[in-house]
Amino acid sequence: MTSTVLNVQGLTCGHCVASVTEELQGLDGVTSVDVALVKGGVSTVTVLSTEPLEPAATKAAITEAGYSLVE
Amino acid sequence: MTSTVLNVQGLTCGHCVASVTEELQGLDGVTSVDVALVKGGVSTVTVLSTEPLEPAATKAAITEAGYSLVE
Repeated sequence: MTSTVLNVQGLTCGHCVASVTEELQGLDGVTSVDVALVKGGVSTVTVLSTEPLEPAATKAAITEAGYSLVE
Repeated sequence: MTSTVLNVQGLTCGHCVASVTEELQGLDGVTSVDVALVKGGVSTVTVLSTEPLEPAATKAAITEAGYSLVE
């Protein structure tokens, strides 16, 4: 099991949390997504997966949800 | 046709706009909802309807969406 912590800019509410969670859950091997919401700031997103996340796909999922990955 | 302007507190993003719009469109006679989003502040919501909005139902719709009416 792999745990990946992502810093995501731009989440403002529970709808945003649901949106980014849904996109990340679509990635290969993801078993859980936990979001510590910082409204309008940089939120901490912790992803558990059975295999390491593929960086480009991870970034694409966050972009698809309408937010940005702070690297 | 009646136009009603509502001041709604707490919308922060497009998801919030969609949520409050959907609730208001469920009220009797509503034909359109326009939201001028003020992120985290008081947004202006303009509702067009074929009959005057019922105040209690209007307030309930906004509360149901998770926001508050500023009166």
